[in-house]
Amino acid sequence: METRSSILCPADRDEAKFNGSQKSATPIPGTRGVTGRRSGGRAGRTAKRQSIASQTFDAAWRHWKNPYTPIEQFSADQIEAIHTASLKVLRETGVKVLSPEARAIYASAGMTARDDEVICFDSDLLLELISKASSQVALHGRGADRNVTVGGPHVGICTVGGTPNFSDLEDGRRPGTLESHDNLCRLAQSFDVIHMIGSLAEAQDIAPSIRHLTVTRSVVSLTDKVPFVFFRGAQAVADAYEIIRVSHGLTQEEFSRTPACFSIANSNSPLQLDLLMCGGIIDAAKAGQMMVLTPFTLAGAMAPVTLAGALVLQNAEALAGLALSQIVNPGAPVCYGSFTSNVDMKTGSPAFGTPEYTKAAFASGQLARRYGLPLRSSGVTASNAPDAQATYETQMSLWGALMGGANMILHGAGWLEGGLTVSAEKFIIDIEMLQMFAELFKPVDLNTETLGVDAIAEVGHGGHFFGTQHTLDRFETAFYSPLLSDWSNFENWQDKGSVDSTRRANKIFRETLSTYEPPELDPARLEEIDEFVARRISEGGADIDK
Amino acid sequence: METRSSILCPADRDEAKFNGSQKSATPIPGTRGVTGRRSGGRAGRTAKRQSIASQTFDAAWRHWKNPYTPIEQFSADQIEAIHTASLKVLRETGVKVLSPEARAIYASAGMTARDDEVICFDSDLLLELISKASSQVALHGRGADRNVTVGGPHVGICTVGGTPNFSDLEDGRRPGTLESHDNLCRLAQSFDVIHMIGSLAEAQDIAPSIRHLTVTRSVVSLTDKVPFVFFRGAQAVADAYEIIRVSHGLTQEEFSRTPACFSIANSNSPLQLDLLMCGGIIDAAKAGQMMVLTPFTLAGAMAPVTLAGALVLQNAEALAGLALSQIVNPGAPVCYGSFTSNVDMKTGSPAFGTPEYTKAAFASGQLARRYGLPLRSSGVTASNAPDAQATYETQMSLWGALMGGANMILHGAGWLEGGLTVSAEKFIIDIEMLQMFAELFKPVDLNTETLGVDAIAEVGHGGHFFGTQHTLDRFETAFYSPLLSDWSNFENWQDKGSVDSTRRANKIFRETLSTYEPPELDPARLEEIDEFVARRISEGGADIDK
Repeated sequence: METRSSILCPADRDEAKFNGSQKSATPIPGTRGVTGRRSGGRAGRTAKRQSIASQTFDAAWRHWKNPYTPIEQFSADQIEAIHTASLKVLRETGVKVLSPEARAIYASAGMTARDDEVICFDSDLLLELISKASSQVALHGRGADRNVTVGGPHVGICTVGGTPNFSDLEDGRRPGTLESHDNLCRLAQSFDVIHMIGSLAEAQDIAPSIRHLTVTRSVVSLTDKVPFVFFRGAQAVADAYEIIRVSHGLTQEEFSRTPACFSIANSNSPLQLDLLMCGGIIDAAKAGQMMVLTPFTLAGAMAPVTLAGALVLQNAEALAGLALSQIVNPGAPVCYGSFTSNVDMKTGSPAFGTPEYTKAAFASGQLARRYGLPLRSSGVTASNAPDAQATYETQMSLWGALMGGANMILHGAGWLEGGLTVSAEKFIIDIEMLQMFAELFKPVDLNTETLGVDAIAEVGHGGHFFGTQHTLDRFETAFYSPLLSDWSNFENWQDKGSVDSTRRANKIFRETLSTYEPPELDPARLEEIDEFVARRISEGGADIDK
Repeated sequence: METRSSILCPADRDEAKFNGSQKSATPIPGTRGVTGRRSGGRAGRTAKRQSIASQTFDAAWRHWKNPYTPIEQFSADQIEAIHTASLKVLRETGVKVLSPEARAIYASAGMTARDDEVICFDSDLLLELISKASSQVALHGRGADRNVTVGGPHVGICTVGGTPNFSDLEDGRRPGTLESHDNLCRLAQSFDVIHMIGSLAEAQDIAPSIRHLTVTRSVVSLTDKVPFVFFRGAQAVADAYEIIRVSHGLTQEEFSRTPACFSIANSNSPLQLDLLMCGGIIDAAKAGQMMVLTPFTLAGAMAPVTLAGALVLQNAEALAGLALSQIVNPGAPVCYGSFTSNVDMKTGSPAFGTPEYTKAAFASGQLARRYGLPLRSSGVTASNAPDAQATYETQMSLWGALMGGANMILHGAGWLEGGLTVSAEKFIIDIEMLQMFAELFKPVDLNTETLGVDAIAEVGHGGHFFGTQHTLDRFETAFYSPLLSDWSNFENWQDKGSVDSTRRANKIFRETLSTYEPPELDPARLEEIDEFVARRISEGGADIDK
């Protein structure tokens, strides 16, 4: 079998060959002069990425394009059965809408408003509304080349959001603060594979009434990527939009035509939309900013215990919420959100990155494409530590999302503990995994030169390719060079202190913060933002949840 | 966003609902009576699996069937370009064959034998030989329902093989011994998702001349799964076959018609087949036992630095070696082996589970299907510790293998450090990941009942599904219940000592050994095996490498 130095190994010659090269401290044969370099090409860029976080442009890392045909969980007939069942749910059971304004809007579009606050949906009217939504949303990032397309083959990666706590190896888990929030902004800005900034960890040391002002100011000044706006009441949403508008230097009218941020609306599964969510959906639609409708369908808890049933409920709630935005503003930028997972039936604990989660992600891609909508999915885990479990659960959810055809990955970096904590080390582990996916998505160059028939003839039998011109011409950019992974052999790894990947991630986290480079922001715009924030704080901020 | 208990969370009602259930120590509402049970269904089986390793029959875990359409890396034209290039390499550069017997066999089939030991392959003759191989191999396991089909949608999972060292958290890394080998056999026997037994860790405390006798006796007595036979010379191969034949109670003639074990032949990339490999390929073909031809094509070292070129070389070497078996015994059971990865160009260290590895796995599936051959791939990592890196690299290789359409996963459990160590903890982490894939491969039940429209109507708006009959009828078998993952909330996890998944894996490893149940083996057969082993040891065993 393929073993590196087992005695009597059937491939001893090969083994000796590459163990020799691997164990030697000197550069590999034939590349001594070249491997010394530390600039240019992937090797140089990555060396830089490992010492200071990357500001180096890599188009494929900044603009993900998924080259693979999505994996399908269900047949077309089965998808139609889920579709038909969710229309039946919306028609006969309907959705309880706690906002009188939203109920009036639904009624104005011909839906039936019952006197128990329930809206029942006519299927044809509903599908006509859904058809008004675009299949792709072009989000405008403030920074050069920070635009993100959500839809079609395009994928935008967002950090974790909505977590109350922050943790690192030094001080463990504690409530989020503005400092931890801002450090996470610096981290997110530092890596090209992050395209959108989630709400990260709650700055719980800032009063809720003014928190949206402080953190939005942080996000637009510490990053130039697409920010998130919390649906925490009309005033808070308007304040955040204003800060983002000014950061882009847009007029009100221009801003309404320029999706520059996004929000998440969670339905209160099963089948309920609350005041905050309805208000946010209406405000985002009017403002022309992207809204992702994500039902919180945990099979066995807020959704049926069957995966099929949970998907029926997810689909019904997503369509109902998305329709509201399309009545308010036909063509308003929206995204179909999938978050269906399951609970541990012995304890009721939510689980993430399970086999059921992965199947639901594949199926959600089919449903979103059924309606011509972009899809949002997630990279998630229930683990309490940035360990092997956190890693395989996140991989199962990322593969489900990306091979299912997701166009936006929320919680792409940092999520731990089912969303209760942002982990500094998990953030770096996730960045490494995301960079690997970005590389996976790069097409393979295939032509006469890369097929290498001549190079193979030149090396002949039992030789090696280290020193050949074919190798020297390409080795610097041939392969992904990792941020976190340690490929040194056991002896060298031991000599370096036998540091495992979680502790290495902590070190990279610290180094990245120490080498963070802030993005450009017109001082006049920042001044205008600061004046606005100061004024709004002096006015008492926003009456949250109204 | 979806956060469990962030203040001002837009989905507070849902959160409170399932955090409440999650944090409560009592069974979830409506299932108190039922959750008490500890037998029957997945819940019972899994509870058992977590206390003692599973001997419980789960057809889907013992016989993997991949329901997904394979992911394709290349267009059909690109695959033909790789195919054509490898035929050109075989025709013009050829393969150096160090065995006079093998050269004579190739010549007898019409290939050109040059006087420098190089065989040049006529493309038409080669493809005609390859076409004689079957697209599926039915391997006979000794135990009840331990048969494994390799090919088509079927997948067989094998343990790690060929590693010189063993490691666990208590005593770290040390040379493999018969004790560690046998403990790994017990571990492998204990989990349904393991179907084949690799060579595990070398029993370096047993003399090489008799090691094959001792370890093969261990494998057939400690497990009833499909064993591996090392190509370590004609005598050693014949001895191992004899032990396996007797363990099945077959006549020589029956054994030759019954594939009951497998071997790996590694070509010495580039383009060389050594004496041991040639001898093994010939012996396995004559004996009708499965041979996997796996070129050791590390891009940038023993293969071109371009992925396309490494695949051309892999394909050329695989076809050349497989053809030898088909000349010796047309239709002899074989498998196309893919192991193409890349090295770290800065050090020459081999890397595994890289983006390039995953792309090569996808492409290898297309190549194997091009020839109607079953495909072998691997679950591998270069990490030196059973940590997050080991986990994401193994996930990247497993997803590449399984979504690429692999039919056999070698090194599926335990591999660490690029194959230099079997890690006890990594073995358990891998078992958890494999069980998740086995569950992923189970079809989703979709019908009127599972679509749950009535259950959704019954629960209505803002309620929960915990106590409904729809849930009670299904919750025990609804979801995968993990072996290793800990889904408890942070406080409970902390109360239990904040044990990370690697340390939990160590505990499961110990528990599994303590509850190991040996398989049935006819005492008369064991007696015959012991007499044979004793006699062959007294005769000095085998002259290895001849």
